[in-house]
Amino acid sequence: MKTDKTKVKRRPDRGHYDKETVYRILDRDFICQIGFVFDGYPVVIPTIYGRKGNSLYFHGANVSRMLQTLEKGVSVSVNVTLTDALVLARSAFHHSLNYESVTLFGTAHLVDGDEDKMEALKIISDQVLKDRWSEVRLPNEKELNVTKVLKLEINEVSAKIRAEGVGDDKPDYDLDIWAGVVPIHRTYGKAIPDELLKSGIETAPSVKKIENERL
Amino acid sequence: MKTDKTKVKRRPDRGHYDKETVYRILDRDFICQIGFVFDGYPVVIPTIYGRKGNSLYFHGANVSRMLQTLEKGVSVSVNVTLTDALVLARSAFHHSLNYESVTLFGTAHLVDGDEDKMEALKIISDQVLKDRWSEVRLPNEKELNVTKVLKLEINEVSAKIRAEGVGDDKPDYDLDIWAGVVPIHRTYGKAIPDELLKSGIETAPSVKKIENERL
Repeated sequence: MKTDKTKVKRRPDRGHYDKETVYRILDRDFICQIGFVFDGYPVVIPTIYGRKGNSLYFHGANVSRMLQTLEKGVSVSVNVTLTDALVLARSAFHHSLNYESVTLFGTAHLVDGDEDKMEALKIISDQVLKDRWSEVRLPNEKELNVTKVLKLEINEVSAKIRAEGVGDDKPDYDLDIWAGVVPIHRTYGKAIPDELLKSGIETAPSVKKIENERL
Repeated sequence: MKTDKTKVKRRPDRGHYDKETVYRILDRDFICQIGFVFDGYPVVIPTIYGRKGNSLYFHGANVSRMLQTLEKGVSVSVNVTLTDALVLARSAFHHSLNYESVTLFGTAHLVDGDEDKMEALKIISDQVLKDRWSEVRLPNEKELNVTKVLKLEINEVSAKIRAEGVGDDKPDYDLDIWAGVVPIHRTYGKAIPDELLKSGIETAPSVKKIENERL
């Protein structure tokens, strides 16, 4: 939604406001930076998130200062940024990055009730590693009780994307300077089994699916 | 420096306050998230940075709302987070990530004077791609004039690190569930020359050095 807050000011041509684009970018990652005001000063804290439908979910320990602050209904700003390439121009001035970024404003709400909390934790787990939830020992009552889950609706949101080649000033194209794009990839490496893994246990299917693959 | 602001509250065992650790983590990346308060609400914006000595430098267009706000001397919070691995426990509850993160508080100041601005821009350029600065057409007067550079001293800062294996509850070690760590790597791909590159120009040395290498 394009509002005064979310409108992309610098390079408005790179701004996107459709949910499809926002969801696609959010689904490329599972780490965001949450900004809020605490004691009058801004704080930016990285945290894991999960998205389902139009909601973003966060979790942590009951005692987390961030979650305790957010729960009070303070304004938050969330950013997710993926850097896809270095864009190397002939001039220093026109160097750039290719990236996809989402910035979201809103107010988080506590997810209450064991069933809703479990559902939200599954959404977060799925975001980090699809299907892992079905392989593990699920949270028990005690674990649920010390875990706080918050939900943020994806309404005041914008995406900013640069996905192009080099753009130099006309006269600079004559310079004998290499220019181009260097992609940046994130990949999972080979899984390292826990030293205390019981013998005979094969790598989990959720892990086999991502080993040596791109994020 | 450990202050009330920077003290790592959750999992204080993961907190680090020595500059060596802070610099090492900052030097692994070139993208940070800056948080500040604008019109009473928090804003988190991703931006490129460069570090030299105890200073962090940011740059952008003169008209950038973020830089115009920061220049006024408002409080800022900066976060850099690198996610190094998925930590997959037998229990959902003990799933975690390995990561290195730096959180910094302070007030930015304008870098004034062409010479100091050029030096700061070189530091930022070096952070993104070492030695690129010596290969390109450097900023001219006009370009310098439309560029704003800010500097932030690295004083109120802390690092938070998790770099361990799986930690499960004792009884869960008997479960037939795979547990382990899946590393996450960032790598540069093969450089893609600009379509308008003059013929006969070889890939720049700065680029050759990083092609297919890890960040």
